[in-house]
Amino acid sequence: MKAFRFEDRIALENLRLVELDVPRPGPREILVRMRAAAMNQRDVLIAQGRYGNFAAPLVPLSDGAGEVVEVGPAVTRFGKGDRVIPTYVPDWIAGPVREGVGARRLGGPNPGTLRELMAVHEEAAVRAPSNLGWLEAATLPIAAVTAWQVLFTDVGIGPGDVIAVQGTGGVALFVVQLARAAGAKAVVLLRSGARAARVEEAGAAVVDTSREPAWESRLLALTNGRGVDLFVDVVGGNGVNRAVAATRVGGTVALVGFVGDTTASIDLPAAIRRVVSFRTVSGGSRATFEALVRGIEANDVHPIIDTVVPFTKAPEAFVKLASGSPFGKVVIDFDG
Amino acid sequence: MKAFRFEDRIALENLRLVELDVPRPGPREILVRMRAAAMNQRDVLIAQGRYGNFAAPLVPLSDGAGEVVEVGPAVTRFGKGDRVIPTYVPDWIAGPVREGVGARRLGGPNPGTLRELMAVHEEAAVRAPSNLGWLEAATLPIAAVTAWQVLFTDVGIGPGDVIAVQGTGGVALFVVQLARAAGAKAVVLLRSGARAARVEEAGAAVVDTSREPAWESRLLALTNGRGVDLFVDVVGGNGVNRAVAATRVGGTVALVGFVGDTTASIDLPAAIRRVVSFRTVSGGSRATFEALVRGIEANDVHPIIDTVVPFTKAPEAFVKLASGSPFGKVVIDFDG
Amino acid sequence: MKAFRFEDRIALENLRLVELDVPRPGPREILVRMRAAAMNQRDVLIAQGRYGNFAAPLVPLSDGAGEVVEVGPAVTRFGKGDRVIPTYVPDWIAGPVREGVGARRLGGPNPGTLRELMAVHEEAAVRAPSNLGWLEAATLPIAAVTAWQVLFTDVGIGPGDVIAVQGTGGVALFVVQLARAAGAKAVVLLRSGARAARVEEAGAAVVDTSREPAWESRLLALTNGRGVDLFVDVVGGNGVNRAVAATRVGGTVALVGFVGDTTASIDLPAAIRRVVSFRTVSGGSRATFEALVRGIEANDVHPIIDTVVPFTKAPEAFVKLASGSPFGKVVIDFDG
Amino acid sequence: MKAFRFEDRIALENLRLVELDVPRPGPREILVRMRAAAMNQRDVLIAQGRYGNFAAPLVPLSDGAGEVVEVGPAVTRFGKGDRVIPTYVPDWIAGPVREGVGARRLGGPNPGTLRELMAVHEEAAVRAPSNLGWLEAATLPIAAVTAWQVLFTDVGIGPGDVIAVQGTGGVALFVVQLARAAGAKAVVLLRSGARAARVEEAGAAVVDTSREPAWESRLLALTNGRGVDLFVDVVGGNGVNRAVAATRVGGTVALVGFVGDTTASIDLPAAIRRVVSFRTVSGGSRATFEALVRGIEANDVHPIIDTVVPFTKAPEAFVKLASGSPFGKVVIDFDG
Repeated sequence: MKAFRFEDRIALENLRLVELDVPRPGPREILVRMRAAAMNQRDVLIAQGRYGNFAAPLVPLSDGAGEVVEVGPAVTRFGKGDRVIPTYVPDWIAGPVREGVGARRLGGPNPGTLRELMAVHEEAAVRAPSNLGWLEAATLPIAAVTAWQVLFTDVGIGPGDVIAVQGTGGVALFVVQLARAAGAKAVVLLRSGARAARVEEAGAAVVDTSREPAWESRLLALTNGRGVDLFVDVVGGNGVNRAVAATRVGGTVALVGFVGDTTASIDLPAAIRRVVSFRTVSGGSRATFEALVRGIEANDVHPIIDTVVPFTKAPEAFVKLASGSPFGKVVIDFDG
Repeated sequence: MKAFRFEDRIALENLRLVELDVPRPGPREILVRMRAAAMNQRDVLIAQGRYGNFAAPLVPLSDGAGEVVEVGPAVTRFGKGDRVIPTYVPDWIAGPVREGVGARRLGGPNPGTLRELMAVHEEAAVRAPSNLGWLEAATLPIAAVTAWQVLFTDVGIGPGDVIAVQGTGGVALFVVQLARAAGAKAVVLLRSGARAARVEEAGAAVVDTSREPAWESRLLALTNGRGVDLFVDVVGGNGVNRAVAATRVGGTVALVGFVGDTTASIDLPAAIRRVVSFRTVSGGSRATFEALVRGIEANDVHPIIDTVVPFTKAPEAFVKLASGSPFGKVVIDFDG
Repeated sequence: MKAFRFEDRIALENLRLVELDVPRPGPREILVRMRAAAMNQRDVLIAQGRYGNFAAPLVPLSDGAGEVVEVGPAVTRFGKGDRVIPTYVPDWIAGPVREGVGARRLGGPNPGTLRELMAVHEEAAVRAPSNLGWLEAATLPIAAVTAWQVLFTDVGIGPGDVIAVQGTGGVALFVVQLARAAGAKAVVLLRSGARAARVEEAGAAVVDTSREPAWESRLLALTNGRGVDLFVDVVGGNGVNRAVAATRVGGTVALVGFVGDTTASIDLPAAIRRVVSFRTVSGGSRATFEALVRGIEANDVHPIIDTVVPFTKAPEAFVKLASGSPFGKVVIDFDG
Repeated sequence: MKAFRFEDRIALENLRLVELDVPRPGPREILVRMRAAAMNQRDVLIAQGRYGNFAAPLVPLSDGAGEVVEVGPAVTRFGKGDRVIPTYVPDWIAGPVREGVGARRLGGPNPGTLRELMAVHEEAAVRAPSNLGWLEAATLPIAAVTAWQVLFTDVGIGPGDVIAVQGTGGVALFVVQLARAAGAKAVVLLRSGARAARVEEAGAAVVDTSREPAWESRLLALTNGRGVDLFVDVVGGNGVNRAVAATRVGGTVALVGFVGDTTASIDLPAAIRRVVSFRTVSGGSRATFEALVRGIEANDVHPIIDTVVPFTKAPEAFVKLASGSPFGKVVIDFDG
């Protein structure tokens, strides 16, 4: 069976199409014929040597979906023909995050989803949402699970809450779609008006920070002076203090990224005055993923896809995400 | 100013239209010109002598909405012209229920909303949802707040959860509308098909128990064998055990009514096997009410109204709710 | 290696001492030399044919502790010589209870702890508290984990809370000891004064219901009229309504047993008036067990043991628990 | 009646002993004869013009306790002779913090506790713990309530959890005492060994950072590599990253002070890797205070007092706290 793999050492130019042995499922494993995979920033950073320190050879990518083509003799959760998604953090079944649970993530250090066949422990997969095609289903394991974890598992947003998020990255777009599904309002901060129409189509209000540099005031105005219930910060730096100013007393700033600066410089008296808390997030459990699947089905949420690349041209997907500013996910089609 | 009041003793035939002194707002009070009031089962039971043991004279009703026409000198939360709703439990501002918080409920023992002018402490009112007219806004204090308390404050439902409820009473219809607003699925158990179309229009699936007497099996089938996340029981008796059987492992049965039987006979081994919990609910805090208002506005939820009675014919509203099987709220229009 | 096993069919007279093959640990399994096991009511009920419907042959008992004598090649959580306790519900690692998690419980349907050697998956064991001997450590998996689950995982008691519990069964005594460790007050309802001194020695106040038949009033008096924060009901029937009357507004009644009556007949208006919730409990996750172990160590809690029976006389332990009214656990000593 | 008051403008040299009119309690007010008051850093900062911007004249101090000597005609919560403590945040009765709830704090902007008689709304006081004298009871409103809020209302610690805190300030010592009451372990970081014995006497382990500059490693070692469950940071700066390193995966760093630096510079990748959350805290509700009172009584906790100053020499208390490095609270005795 075919796979892409970083050979010798991890670098995009070493990502090779290789022929590997067909895996044999163990007693509690399922054999999954992958139909699609999807990119995350993590994959780009790994390929650039800026994240983790994983050993080659390594099959990359954490996101993907496929069909069960064989089951081990002790498998009870799935049957042949089931449409499934392997979980990104195989050992995290349920409950809060705990030490060591993330030791075996897909796409580094463990082999990832960019291969035609995967043997997956039956406890480390969820069924794919019935309303999604393969390309859509493949996009969920990192970004959508993270968004769900923040919104519902950690903070518990509900109808009428207001959620702000910066930009149109993978997590941000799922935050918008899932917040809307929950009856909450989403506001997206954009650095220009270029993508405003598409963001509004996704259901969010837009604040164009090039036209409203005092964007925290704008968020307060949008919420009758109250502030947003949850601010999902993907930038870092000291902009986090403007996030605090825009968040309601007792509200939450979720620290999920650092595309601007890896340090967040928090003004403590200001944060304490508003009694704002800061949560970090990193993926979610299988139970969180299963709740996401039910939420996607019940509300017919469809992930936004920017680019589809055929399997044989998978390296182009890395280039697209690294430099193409996609609006939505970059997906690899195994049937393409 | 005019009011309806139980004179001498509490009984529907003693509900008289009387002329009362215009109240003067205290330093932190607002004077509210009521524009609409609404009925609850509680009002009928009080008028029938089957609930509470309140002293006459008593102005009845707990639900209502109106306009601020005067403010005391120390008032900061509201101004003249604001559209407001008095809270049913004036002393319950925020946090979990606690001893004594319900001692001064509107409509018994404290004077209720069926009067043209009310002096209300500024902490004991919320602003009315901007998307609702007076008749709609008047319906919220008991039934919608109770529904919100169950769904969001107590249980914390979210997108994809499944909520079952019996019949089409006031709380049940709000459970359906608010669950839908939160991206959850609602299922209503009906004893005949007569109202199925209207329930489906409100966004819920219907199980007609006259055609599906084994309704717990039907609920399991609707949830792929998993069971509903929350069952809102308004009937009592030993039907609660079928509710348990229809609820997912670790799920919740909310005990909010007893129209069938005032005793709930729980089969303990069965309940423990499914680890189902039982919650009781009785109204909610002002903070819960304020969250409800934001949720209603953000999702443009409109309460379902069955009957509008003009103020001067208010006693007819009691008759309608007691014997008319309304689908939606019975509202009294002060301008009608 | 030796084991006791129900042969042919499950009945105490069929519990035989047998010689079984030495188990070989799989790649992620540990081989545990058992040093002690302990009895629960569940074991008695199974032996009497009144609980479950398990297939013979069956090694009974869910509680036990032992020493790791061999580890599979992929084991990382434990090493040779570690003192461990197998978990009663092997598949429940963390998070809330969920469908199917309890399918493979020790002592029925899966083989239990009454055997000299057990091969246990490394995820299905916890290290034993360092302050406990083998006999004490063996008592924890069902009763102490259930008590911890109620007190801390479900309800979240803390210093100054008041917990009431009936009698001196296994769960009740752990409720007392663990509530005390958390700075809470424990009150035990006894049907006579015979055991009052021992209960008080364990740190609880006593209400002798033979002398105070209106025990709910006594509990209210003990809490300045407020009611207890948590009432752990092990009796069932309609006494649960007296538990409700003795519980504070907004408090919890935990339904953990039914030694009096398998039906709990709840007076709904009374329960709703006090807004009392009812929780059921059935064991706990490994994460709950690990928290229990840390709590026991930090507070040097020692389980109360009534009777120690040597391994070769294990059937006597069943008789003792069934008819001997022990005060504390009945433990089987593999070295005795 | 006598009071100390900042006259003209707020500065320690303007703190004068003045004669004020005896207050008359309103209908729902109680008149409290103050018996003791206590200092917090907030009082020193206000007197130094470094906190808030309050108008003179101002009676300072937020902490105090006294006896009810008169009650308004509508008062139901207290009677003459009751021992009470006014709440620091009078409008915060229960539930999470919310906008505006802190607008009327005692000791700025509202008149504080350094006066012989206070008229207090009955909803804005709690009964004093029965096991504490006046001097002890006076110390609770800011520091102990903040400690309780962090430990129990926000984080929910329990037996066996490990809590680390820096230094021996007012909040830190209550964190130690209350964590111990809950069966948790407390570890105090000290910059020298000078106070180690006294900290250990209070029930905490000590890490002397002058001898263990890599104190985060020491905390990991003390917790078997797991990290503490809660780190209460009072210092700020970038030491917060060492706090993160010392906290368990999924644990919490509480940001309650900034004696070192008003900015906390958080290393985002490191914090996200450990999924550590940051909570800010600022006082607590009356419900939190009432839980604290019950917790103190049940565990006979006695606040640590360093210095007692007689009422007439109250300005010396400011000097003592500002420059005297007290170990425990500085209290003002109205009977001294």
